[in-house]
Amino acid sequence: MDIAVAEPAQPRLPPPAPAWSPARPRRLALGLIGPGRVGSALLDQLQRARARLALDAGLELALRGVAASRRMWLDCDDPELNGRHGGAQTWRPADLDAFAAHVRGGEGHALLIDCSAHEAVAARYAGWLAAGLHVVTPNKLAASGPLDRWRAIRRAAAQGGARLRYEATVCAGLPVVQTLRDLVDTGDELLAVEGMFSGTLAWLCNRHDGRQPFSALLREAHALGYTEPDPRADLSGADVARKLVILAREAGWPLSLEDVEVESLVPPALDALPPEDFLQRLDALDAPMAARLAQAREAGGVLRHVARLDRHGRASVRLAVLPVRHAFAHTRLTDNIVQFTTRRYCDNPLTVQGPGAGPEVTAAGVFADLLRIAEALEPAA
Amino acid sequence: MDIAVAEPAQPRLPPPAPAWSPARPRRLALGLIGPGRVGSALLDQLQRARARLALDAGLELALRGVAASRRMWLDCDDPELNGRHGGAQTWRPADLDAFAAHVRGGEGHALLIDCSAHEAVAARYAGWLAAGLHVVTPNKLAASGPLDRWRAIRRAAAQGGARLRYEATVCAGLPVVQTLRDLVDTGDELLAVEGMFSGTLAWLCNRHDGRQPFSALLREAHALGYTEPDPRADLSGADVARKLVILAREAGWPLSLEDVEVESLVPPALDALPPEDFLQRLDALDAPMAARLAQAREAGGVLRHVARLDRHGRASVRLAVLPVRHAFAHTRLTDNIVQFTTRRYCDNPLTVQGPGAGPEVTAAGVFADLLRIAEALEPAA
Repeated sequence: MDIAVAEPAQPRLPPPAPAWSPARPRRLALGLIGPGRVGSALLDQLQRARARLALDAGLELALRGVAASRRMWLDCDDPELNGRHGGAQTWRPADLDAFAAHVRGGEGHALLIDCSAHEAVAARYAGWLAAGLHVVTPNKLAASGPLDRWRAIRRAAAQGGARLRYEATVCAGLPVVQTLRDLVDTGDELLAVEGMFSGTLAWLCNRHDGRQPFSALLREAHALGYTEPDPRADLSGADVARKLVILAREAGWPLSLEDVEVESLVPPALDALPPEDFLQRLDALDAPMAARLAQAREAGGVLRHVARLDRHGRASVRLAVLPVRHAFAHTRLTDNIVQFTTRRYCDNPLTVQGPGAGPEVTAAGVFADLLRIAEALEPAA
Repeated sequence: MDIAVAEPAQPRLPPPAPAWSPARPRRLALGLIGPGRVGSALLDQLQRARARLALDAGLELALRGVAASRRMWLDCDDPELNGRHGGAQTWRPADLDAFAAHVRGGEGHALLIDCSAHEAVAARYAGWLAAGLHVVTPNKLAASGPLDRWRAIRRAAAQGGARLRYEATVCAGLPVVQTLRDLVDTGDELLAVEGMFSGTLAWLCNRHDGRQPFSALLREAHALGYTEPDPRADLSGADVARKLVILAREAGWPLSLEDVEVESLVPPALDALPPEDFLQRLDALDAPMAARLAQAREAGGVLRHVARLDRHGRASVRLAVLPVRHAFAHTRLTDNIVQFTTRRYCDNPLTVQGPGAGPEVTAAGVFADLLRIAEALEPAA
């Protein structure tokens, strides 16, 4: 799509008052870990933005390497390839420590982008940050992982003067983590978070009106690619619980995954089946889900998959019956939604809503984090 | 309200990986222009956050002066009063240039907060930014004012290495301007903005169901303090048009107020009346508003006050008939709402909703801007 247009005849405005300026160039070396769907979308976005950022903002981005789980590419292999991912490249066996050292290698600032979903990567954040390497990521494993490790990561960032940002861990590109951060940093008090953090479950609840059995909808969602390859990853609520842990910690609550009361939609009998067997047994979900829907209707409400955090740090993820006038009853398709109720936003909550998954919007959330860090870089000498 | 709690027993987490750290203190001198309702709320918020920011984040804020329209207070009058606004202070006749020079006076970084609604202040931004003074403001006059001046302000910021932030000019503390900025900066293309930017008009439209004449609702809103002292300031749509101009420019459109097609709800015959006479003639609004409501109902829709910007940079502010399933039909009380439709957010828009006015949330929006600038300050030598 093209937004170019004939009128008004005046030229488009340049971006407003940047934190940086072409007169004071900043250089940032980048390394991408995990060139999957999100990582590849991010490389495309960076590549398209590169000339503009250099020209308008004096921000010079240099891609110094890409690491996948088994192999990696480093720009020292062929300096001409710098910035061009794809094409003829020399890949080496992956070694995360060597990769980070290479990206950190030059003068100036360096940043690692973790688009993997791997523990082995999250386990290295503290070391990287302590060494002054910035990190941005949509990987939930660090921010929702063991509390001691998370504390160590924060300490390392403070000590190394490097920054970690993870906006895209919750609702992809929607402004959620930073919004909560701003509320807390400006002295507001969080009283409650209520949200729907699974586009898959939102879609299933929206469509589940009793005309089709739940299993038919689940098969349709699976075929559309709305679910994980094994839909139990969505139905278990575990991914939603991770997002709630991230928000709880952002608000200061030392929560761990096991503190979240999670209602799984997977019947216990199907928990341990191999994926292909599970997909043959989806109709076991129909009776319990039909019963929940009937209960909701009896109560005059709708059934939604809701994550909640209260002002005492209590967290839950479950199917809930909501009044038909509730905002969550009116979301569309796979929309995510989050509502922050605070001391300042107490009559009506602050609400953010929209598509909360997908490679492009997730990559954009990571990209915005990268730009936020770049704003605070000291110019090259 | 108090969010302190007995369990979980672990201590609250400190704020996450800050951009700054206690080991590298940053000092920021502040000057507040306009100690009205928003300015006073901000001084309270700053005062409460000051010790925490110094301790946790190494950010040392020093209030060096407060300027009202006729008088000002400077901390040099009594160093002991630094940081304490209120109480026995020496006020001098206000002189904005002397005020800015005083705030800029020391070593280190300085920032002016414009919580006035005055042209005379907005007219000085370019000079201040060129001199390296940062500016944060909820004052719409610069960002929606003459285009040449706005361009000069942006240039001055780029040249002076200083930053101007104005998140609270649109929907107060809701994350709107920065969200649009992030979309554009990461290479997304804005296709449409649709919003309700007036809490007053949202409340009036929500309540206007035909059971009461429009003038009765308007009198109630006036009595509740939801309207400006002269409600024509709300009904004219001019304030909403300013917000739309700010968003349009953020997306690169060189729009001016006169480019916005604005439908005023004030009958032409009442335009020029003195305020007290206007308040006696509110029933002149009843017939036209009843007719609009009837039209909307005939079409099976609801009546809402909507600001729109399309992908060609065309902007309008008017009463619109929306389908009952439209998101704007379900807002509550005086909620503001904004929807960004972009190349990436095209099936469903990115939506931000919540209270978009009031001293506390507006001040918090300004405070968050201040913190965003503070993140990027170089530490004191």
